[in-house]
Amino acid sequence: MAETPKIRFGFIGCANIARRVSRAVAIAPDAVLYAVGSRSLDKAHAFAAANGFPAGAKVYGSYEAVLDDPEVDVVYLPLPTSLHVRWAVLAASKKKHILLEKPVALNVAEFDDIIAACESNGVQLMDGTMWMHHPRTSKMKEFLSDVNRFGQLKSSIGEGMVYPFMFCIDMHCFYFTSLIHSNFTFTARAEFLENDIRVKPDLDALGALGDEGWYCLRAALWAADYELPKTVIALRNPEHNQVGVLLSCGATLYWEDGKVATFYCSFLSNTTMDITAFGTKGTLHVHDYVLPYEEDEASFYAATESGVDEAVTKWVPQPSKHITKTDIPQEALMVNEFARLVADIKFNNAKPEKKWPTISRKTQLLVDAVKASIDGGFEPVQIQE
Amino acid sequence: MAETPKIRFGFIGCANIARRVSRAVAIAPDAVLYAVGSRSLDKAHAFAAANGFPAGAKVYGSYEAVLDDPEVDVVYLPLPTSLHVRWAVLAASKKKHILLEKPVALNVAEFDDIIAACESNGVQLMDGTMWMHHPRTSKMKEFLSDVNRFGQLKSSIGEGMVYPFMFCIDMHCFYFTSLIHSNFTFTARAEFLENDIRVKPDLDALGALGDEGWYCLRAALWAADYELPKTVIALRNPEHNQVGVLLSCGATLYWEDGKVATFYCSFLSNTTMDITAFGTKGTLHVHDYVLPYEEDEASFYAATESGVDEAVTKWVPQPSKHITKTDIPQEALMVNEFARLVADIKFNNAKPEKKWPTISRKTQLLVDAVKASIDGGFEPVQIQE
Repeated sequence: MAETPKIRFGFIGCANIARRVSRAVAIAPDAVLYAVGSRSLDKAHAFAAANGFPAGAKVYGSYEAVLDDPEVDVVYLPLPTSLHVRWAVLAASKKKHILLEKPVALNVAEFDDIIAACESNGVQLMDGTMWMHHPRTSKMKEFLSDVNRFGQLKSSIGEGMVYPFMFCIDMHCFYFTSLIHSNFTFTARAEFLENDIRVKPDLDALGALGDEGWYCLRAALWAADYELPKTVIALRNPEHNQVGVLLSCGATLYWEDGKVATFYCSFLSNTTMDITAFGTKGTLHVHDYVLPYEEDEASFYAATESGVDEAVTKWVPQPSKHITKTDIPQEALMVNEFARLVADIKFNNAKPEKKWPTISRKTQLLVDAVKASIDGGFEPVQIQE
Repeated sequence: MAETPKIRFGFIGCANIARRVSRAVAIAPDAVLYAVGSRSLDKAHAFAAANGFPAGAKVYGSYEAVLDDPEVDVVYLPLPTSLHVRWAVLAASKKKHILLEKPVALNVAEFDDIIAACESNGVQLMDGTMWMHHPRTSKMKEFLSDVNRFGQLKSSIGEGMVYPFMFCIDMHCFYFTSLIHSNFTFTARAEFLENDIRVKPDLDALGALGDEGWYCLRAALWAADYELPKTVIALRNPEHNQVGVLLSCGATLYWEDGKVATFYCSFLSNTTMDITAFGTKGTLHVHDYVLPYEEDEASFYAATESGVDEAVTKWVPQPSKHITKTDIPQEALMVNEFARLVADIKFNNAKPEKKWPTISRKTQLLVDAVKASIDGGFEPVQIQE
């Protein structure tokens, strides 16, 4: 049986993150580094040489040339957020599948234009949120979904109604909340705070919210099975730079069933990447969800029915550490998942998978809501799907 | 040189927590279990027998008898919160030093009556927040106070003004926040939710806020060097039982200099006891701050200038685990600290130490503010010292 041909990736732009994704494409079994285009041909050559592009790879002095190359299956788009809608819509019109860096757009209206272009051209769209593809993430989700280990997520009452997070004692029912806390911070260097695209209003106008808050909001959605919260209220401490770009912010999200999430992101605090999920029976802690401490293994802490001994001297049981090993780093798993979907469309006539753009859109909706709450003086913002 | 006589503890009431504190008094080198009083003499006898009271200990059938015993130096007061002001004021009037369970009162006005009674009678007052006395707590504070490991806490600018959490690049100054997150939750059993004093409006009307939120708010104050925040806004998800007692709640606290704290407490989620502190250079994580996993050692995780390697494949450096060993459990260290202060007053004519009641009062002020924000529809509440 002949091997399925590899899916050919073309990069437009040579952003820092593209270095990491080019390594991922090189590692991913089903993908191949095929082309790179930059506005400067020299820069594109230097990038290809430094990042493992094979000898025959195409190197172009423009983004358009990559889009016009009929051999390119996938366009990887790491350009500044303000350029996403223009280049993603154009790439879709050229029938290129699109791996799109996050935040996917400046707002959901722009992203809807991208989705429409992808749908009308039958191409796959996925964002570059790498941690979604780490096998640890599935393991953590298994834990959160386990009513025996994490808790009672759904409980029937009355006429077929279902309330998550509820239990009853005698005649009294408690409809209780579950909390999800997430954060992503790092201390940006002076050069970053002066010059990086992520602090420029004409490039990545969403600043820390788009760059880091994206992950926190995705974590909240992920833990909530992608059910959207009803209300978002920003924390009253956002910091902006002199030109109005967010350097730190946070928010509280409220679901209709009582679930709550809080998050915090900042360019001005030492690196943190935590998710804490509070269940009725169990607890999840992870401290490196965005980028694991080590590439070949990652861990999380799970606790179930934590208690104390009779004399209240120690915890029984104590949380346990769960380690997931992986031979392939999360970004290469992401690339391979994308290549697999594209191959299925290209060779098997499959339809594009809607799960990924749907998740991206929900995340962007929450980014928009946090921004709106900040801009509106920290008032509650209702989420409308 | 003659050994200093031990300080004699008299217990009024036989609450569950009193079992743990009687063990602590028995362990503490400078303290001795001297008397116990209950409204039921049988109950007092049973408590004394079961909790290591020495053969000669006094056992009384009333609280008053303990207060009237001239040999009692210290009254340990674990009664329901609604009874604190009555019994603490009476104990002070009998010149008894008071180790008072938390929450110290139903509100700060009541606690001010207790403080006034203690001051006018020259007796020491301290609350029963055990984790303050664990040597790990000092180690964590050392880390938070270390500008080289945790960050720049104070930075001078202009005419002698001092802004915490600020740094400057060229001509631009960032006045940035630090976040402190804390939580304390446990899944109360059905019997607790039906019958415990902590869910009864006439006994411990503050419910989870008084029982657990107290620790979270203390953690925030502790991390902020006991500087009070300016504004408190409750999360919009509090849960009450059928008689209006809080079963879960949370809030966001805002300091004038930009610091922010969030907290969450609940009787309806699996046990968690986390503090996360975000500094400019470093990060602190602890997961068992209220009660360490083990009695004889406790750990926390510290990270300084966390970064990633050149290829963005792993963290360099990774957080480090710091272990503190202790031969004496935190509650016995608490008792001994109290006995030491009392001995200093009794034998050396020292004045009562104001630090402890001051910290208690600040914590109670925040409890009151969270309650006021909840009762006022989650509006901001200004803190007035």
